[in-house]
Amino acid sequence: MEPYSELSKEELVSLQADLAKQYADAKALGMKLDMSRGKPSKEQLDLSMGLLDALDSASDMQTEDGMDSRNYGGPTGIAEAKKLMADMMGTKPENVIVCGNASLNIMYDTISRSFMFGVNGSEPWCKLDKVKFLCPAPGYDRHFAITELFGVEMITIPMTENGPDMDLVEKYVNTDPAVKGIWCVPKYSNPQGYCYSDETVKRFAALKPAAKDFRIFWDNAYVIHHIYEEKEKQVEILDIISEAEKAGNPDIVYEFASTSKVSFPGAGISAVASSLTNLEWIKKNMSVQTIGHDKINQLRHVRFFKDIDGMNAHMMKHAKSIRPKFEAVLKTFDEELDGLGIGTWTKPLGGYFISFDALPGCAKEIVAKCKEAGVVLTGAGATFPYKKDPEDKNIRIAPTLPTPEEMAKATELFVLCVKLVSVEKLLTQK
Amino acid sequence: MEPYSELSKEELVSLQADLAKQYADAKALGMKLDMSRGKPSKEQLDLSMGLLDALDSASDMQTEDGMDSRNYGGPTGIAEAKKLMADMMGTKPENVIVCGNASLNIMYDTISRSFMFGVNGSEPWCKLDKVKFLCPAPGYDRHFAITELFGVEMITIPMTENGPDMDLVEKYVNTDPAVKGIWCVPKYSNPQGYCYSDETVKRFAALKPAAKDFRIFWDNAYVIHHIYEEKEKQVEILDIISEAEKAGNPDIVYEFASTSKVSFPGAGISAVASSLTNLEWIKKNMSVQTIGHDKINQLRHVRFFKDIDGMNAHMMKHAKSIRPKFEAVLKTFDEELDGLGIGTWTKPLGGYFISFDALPGCAKEIVAKCKEAGVVLTGAGATFPYKKDPEDKNIRIAPTLPTPEEMAKATELFVLCVKLVSVEKLLTQK
Repeated sequence: MEPYSELSKEELVSLQADLAKQYADAKALGMKLDMSRGKPSKEQLDLSMGLLDALDSASDMQTEDGMDSRNYGGPTGIAEAKKLMADMMGTKPENVIVCGNASLNIMYDTISRSFMFGVNGSEPWCKLDKVKFLCPAPGYDRHFAITELFGVEMITIPMTENGPDMDLVEKYVNTDPAVKGIWCVPKYSNPQGYCYSDETVKRFAALKPAAKDFRIFWDNAYVIHHIYEEKEKQVEILDIISEAEKAGNPDIVYEFASTSKVSFPGAGISAVASSLTNLEWIKKNMSVQTIGHDKINQLRHVRFFKDIDGMNAHMMKHAKSIRPKFEAVLKTFDEELDGLGIGTWTKPLGGYFISFDALPGCAKEIVAKCKEAGVVLTGAGATFPYKKDPEDKNIRIAPTLPTPEEMAKATELFVLCVKLVSVEKLLTQK
Repeated sequence: MEPYSELSKEELVSLQADLAKQYADAKALGMKLDMSRGKPSKEQLDLSMGLLDALDSASDMQTEDGMDSRNYGGPTGIAEAKKLMADMMGTKPENVIVCGNASLNIMYDTISRSFMFGVNGSEPWCKLDKVKFLCPAPGYDRHFAITELFGVEMITIPMTENGPDMDLVEKYVNTDPAVKGIWCVPKYSNPQGYCYSDETVKRFAALKPAAKDFRIFWDNAYVIHHIYEEKEKQVEILDIISEAEKAGNPDIVYEFASTSKVSFPGAGISAVASSLTNLEWIKKNMSVQTIGHDKINQLRHVRFFKDIDGMNAHMMKHAKSIRPKFEAVLKTFDEELDGLGIGTWTKPLGGYFISFDALPGCAKEIVAKCKEAGVVLTGAGATFPYKKDPEDKNIRIAPTLPTPEEMAKATELFVLCVKLVSVEKLLTQK
């Protein structure tokens, strides 16, 4: 197909009229679809219903380490859940605290704790004139929302296929003592689906922070969330915790994970993994914050999944369910947009999103047009700190929630809006 | 029985020898019993096993307001859980946010939020030179631990059978703008089992705080935790939220409750109730902290209890289980200590504790002696701010965890230690 940029003004005007008519027809269909968040579909949720049978009134409620899971106690989680979550993250059980239903909550609490009480005895961040965080972007909007709430100055770091621009990360972290953290989704990143290369992980582990209380916030949200069953299409990344140990930097990282998109969003279990020194500091504070997390739900998860093999097998069911949707989107993009020069997109092997880059200055308008026709996408800009995409071009596509049929229709509409907005943009430049 | 204080030195010496021998015999029994926390017994936990059958893989997972309880969404809780928790607290569903597994966590987060972000737009407490909290004592050690962690200056307020000394509360709250809060357990208080009188609740509701961001932390932990089945032995207190509204003080109170001692400690559900204005402020912050709480567990609780009548009926099973233990302790105290002038104790109609006041300067030693003989009690002093009982006399008895037989033995030992330590104390004064 011919790139739109090479069309004459007349051709563009004619194309615009045609697209505008198609858009009017699409609007008339009265679609109603919310694709704003990375939510599992009903079909995916149904996959985990067995979790609700894993414990019943006849169950033995003792944990492997001899606790009654029904009573108070065990603030760091039950032994078998530590093992399961450690295996999921590729670390050791002693480096794990199993928490409540959401890793986001652990991240928030970790930031909050650092502000109020410092990091392993450092000056509380709330006492500092300035706290800065590096934010690889496009990234996860809820990460940025946390640091924004705490008044952190967020510095955008460009993302590459191998992870954040590490030259820039090293420059900031190793020279500026106000830089206290960086948000990372190292595997199947939100929204691009990029995976950090071995070199990237090693460079993270070997950082020499100007601030002793600098920490990497390693949100391994999609650690076992492959889309394909073939081993060669399943990405594995290096374990940051052992790499950091090897680099003599054992305390530099907090790793987070959860089963929100393994079992049930909101009713899963979550965990933080870190060095023993970091965990001691967390525990000291956490033991005042709570008597303990939901150990019955931890036990329920272990009884259901049995072990990491059971969990991985379960993830293949998710993969089977969501793969057609990802492929449908990518196929439509290929067929409808390839060669037009009005957008690029990622082709992830895992995670929950496809990242689409439109022509600069078009993302907001594309999202608005989709919404007008009944398809709600993640707000344009959401993938950047302060919700401000400097080039107004990135759009996050979340294919999991709709049915394949809905997804096909929504993608058709999306492609149409991309074309229409792009033509209008190009016309303003003629 | 003759009061110990009227015994001659010789009689005391002889008594001491006798008690010391009994204590040596008791130690030789090698008891091993942890009564340090208010934990339900195995028998009580068994009462709630049906909760685990309330949802299974065949269950309809839709909530009354049409949400799929398994997916993201509904950050303030599902409608039917709001109704249940509102009925439990005696307030309206619209005044309730249902949260995670622990009301202590909500309280911690509420304090933390106030420190970082202020209260409904007020100056964050971390920016203030001084933050003070009133702490009716004896009280709940985990309350005091939170405010201690945040560096709050805690002011002890004496407790009476009708609640805190309200003259003192009014004096502090209405004149000192540094006083930002007060910890209350208004019903079956921890550890005394006292219930706030109507006058006390009304005086709380009518406070005229010098600080606009002063809040009452109303921990209604034992709101339906009666020990007796007879209605006339079940205390009801006024609803603070409607009293505060009537007094023109709608925003003055946060109320907390949970099912930790209704269903399972650690695997229950919790809630905060407050004015709509306060809830808006909480939600603004909470929506960054978490995507939502465990809605499946909320649904599980509603399906199991059905409604507040079902919950109250369930609480009568708990009452039946724990009443004999409370009565065994009180009977032994009556038989062994009445008239000796070496201790006073409360006779609660609900809650989880009996409060014992020894002779001044004796509590630490009594707890130490019990521990030496194998019975671990809550640390002496724990019921006061900074763990410092100014008179070293208060001891919290937690009768629920042991079996009745264990409880009887432990009480015998406790009484023996009270006598022995009291005699030794009196001898130093002869």
